Amino acid sequence: MPALLTYGQALEVKKQFGTPCYVYDRAELEAAARRALALEVQAPFGFTLRYAMKANPNRDVLAIFREMGLHLDASSDHEVERALRAGFTPPSIQLTSQMPSSRLAEHLGRGVLYNACSLRQLDDVGQAAPGSEISVRMNPGDGDGGTNRTKTGGPDCSFGIWHEYLDDVKTLAKKYDLRIARLHSHIGSSAKPEEWKRCAQLTLKLAPALPDVRRINLGGGFKVGRMQGEESVDMAEVGAHMRDELVAFRDRYHRELHLEIEPGTYLVANAGTVVATCVDVVDTGRDGHVFAKLDTGMCEVTRPTLYGAQHPIKVLAAGRMEADVVFVGPCCESGDILTPAEKDRDALAPRRVPRPEIGDLVLVGGAGAYCAAMSMINYNSYPQAPEVLREPDGVLRLLRSRQRIEQVWENEV
Amino acid sequence: MPALLTYGQALEVKKQFGTPCYVYDRAELEAAARRALALEVQAPFGFTLRYAMKANPNRDVLAIFREMGLHLDASSDHEVERALRAGFTPPSIQLTSQMPSSRLAEHLGRGVLYNACSLRQLDDVGQAAPGSEISVRMNPGDGDGGTNRTKTGGPDCSFGIWHEYLDDVKTLAKKYDLRIARLHSHIGSSAKPEEWKRCAQLTLKLAPALPDVRRINLGGGFKVGRMQGEESVDMAEVGAHMRDELVAFRDRYHRELHLEIEPGTYLVANAGTVVATCVDVVDTGRDGHVFAKLDTGMCEVTRPTLYGAQHPIKVLAAGRMEADVVFVGPCCESGDILTPAEKDRDALAPRRVPRPEIGDLVLVGGAGAYCAAMSMINYNSYPQAPEVLREPDGVLRLLRSRQRIEQVWENEV
Repeated sequence: MPALLTYGQALEVKKQFGTPCYVYDRAELEAAARRALALEVQAPFGFTLRYAMKANPNRDVLAIFREMGLHLDASSDHEVERALRAGFTPPSIQLTSQMPSSRLAEHLGRGVLYNACSLRQLDDVGQAAPGSEISVRMNPGDGDGGTNRTKTGGPDCSFGIWHEYLDDVKTLAKKYDLRIARLHSHIGSSAKPEEWKRCAQLTLKLAPALPDVRRINLGGGFKVGRMQGEESVDMAEVGAHMRDELVAFRDRYHRELHLEIEPGTYLVANAGTVVATCVDVVDTGRDGHVFAKLDTGMCEVTRPTLYGAQHPIKVLAAGRMEADVVFVGPCCESGDILTPAEKDRDALAPRRVPRPEIGDLVLVGGAGAYCAAMSMINYNSYPQAPEVLREPDGVLRLLRSRQRIEQVWENEV
Repeated sequence: MPALLTYGQALEVKKQFGTPCYVYDRAELEAAARRALALEVQAPFGFTLRYAMKANPNRDVLAIFREMGLHLDASSDHEVERALRAGFTPPSIQLTSQMPSSRLAEHLGRGVLYNACSLRQLDDVGQAAPGSEISVRMNPGDGDGGTNRTKTGGPDCSFGIWHEYLDDVKTLAKKYDLRIARLHSHIGSSAKPEEWKRCAQLTLKLAPALPDVRRINLGGGFKVGRMQGEESVDMAEVGAHMRDELVAFRDRYHRELHLEIEPGTYLVANAGTVVATCVDVVDTGRDGHVFAKLDTGMCEVTRPTLYGAQHPIKVLAAGRMEADVVFVGPCCESGDILTPAEKDRDALAPRRVPRPEIGDLVLVGGAGAYCAAMSMINYNSYPQAPEVLREPDGVLRLLRSRQRIEQVWENEV
């Protein structure tokens, strides 16, 4: 649970940039990165921290992590472009895309790393750059997520090459003289350190058959609690499990594996807050609900609507009576709800908060990951909200300006 | 179930505009509008068809409906702007927004109609334009949707003024000398004509207490079947029910009410198709699934991920063996699935189709409503897909060009 902005800080955001507005806290971004970088001392044979930039690809967020020595995981050709624009060197960027790259030869030529996620992609890379050194993403046959929806491994998941096809991988590698130097999987999404032990074991089981592998990348999915009382992963404990497994692997196979992890949410989720305004308060009678309508909703924070995700919401008002309040967004869409029930996202889960009034400032926390990056931009024709960085001295710096309304339709011919 | 494009037509789209690409069929748009306009002969005391433009606010789609005499329902100040740009006269636009308008005096001054959706909005309009003639949106206390998620009335819904607050409405109207000439509700979302009878009855129950009301607007929610075998509403039957209720109301209260309806989905859903390319085919072994990865997914058609919505998918290939296939999009997101189970959107529901191969053209149908308008634009940094109109003579006309990749980050400072 992050420390959200104070009333004075939020008011300053509203004065300078209006609402709704994303605010990222540099100190929180850097603190999260430091916690993840601390795995370096635990990884017995080297460590690389890759930021999964799809969680928040803002150039300045990327630049902060670049300055701290992080590498990047890019999810598309376009993200590679954004990474380069943010000053990352090609060898610090790895492309892991579900979409075959249309610029593969160009990427490889300049030194961008490639993680083949399917046999087709492996064939592509063989044709584009025979003899090169690459990574393969495998689906080791199992994978757990916080919810069904976050299944990232196992038979219900399309990501990576199914583990039974290891022979096909080797055949293709041989055909094109590819050196599979890195092994990638992303199957975890848990706060439990033992889960990460299991992830490491499942992935390492595939390494003996790939004798050139010198790096293992265990992906992301390091859970952080956004809500009060919600568990966050203990990186040090996770690191200890990974170390044990890597040492055991070395002892057994005489191969030292460099460790990579690829967090997205972990690095940015709790550094982001949406500053919003309560624009209306309505109710549906004695047996109904109190609804606070905000100027933010599924257009900026889609995760609740999409997955029943829970985000902290804080009404910045003192001395009010408390009430059970359903928070909704400004769209004419019955799904535009910020407080669905976690287990049944079609149901409402009112929050006990100081009873909002029109004009109140309201914060939606945990909004640094998969919010600006993954949202219903322009629904009901609302323009995309701006992104602001809060420096440790309190200075607010505009990272991306609010979309001008003409931009919403500028590509109409 | 719409007639999707033929292979030759889809190939032409791909050649001219690339994939993924939205294609709207003018003949289908006009046919749907004609079916809805046919209610005119049934409405005993006048009829207005308003297109709920949030379903698809493309300027040319709007223009087609303008030429056919439709009026508009706008969901935000920005949509009013788009409506005016598309050539609608102010009196043919009604603003029904969850967000209080920041340009209310301007809108009313130029003749845009206003539908007050809360007591706060009623107060706003009283202050901005005392003495004016307006509409109120009421929540008549009940409302049914196809799913929980489409609840548009009743105590779980924040839309409109709760029916028990009719006295407050009248007090505010008196205070500001507002003439409540129009009554609005949107509580249906059904294919069953009897449901529409009930909607009309529920809404009409409120009309006697509002003596100036001369128009009743029953909103949208007229279901169309996107999938084969899925039921569509019979507009003529619905019209017959509405006529009966309006005649009964006239007989009892000696007031003739002009009828308005406000369909979105009904007018555009089945006129739209996304032309996509199969970019990869993977599987997870004998007991797993076959996955076809398309270059379209939650970025263009979010409804399956969001609501478990079912869209027809057609693989344009002849002479293939059939297989059970899970269709997924290009994002590194486990929720990027085009074929979730309808009742449990976290589960997979493979479709029996000709087994896709890489390079195949694939169509996603029923994509005219709430697809280009309500989608995860730019997730994984993919640029927004273009929109194309197919004229009855087969000519393809670009309505909105594909977003240039630089536009994705052009507001970064």
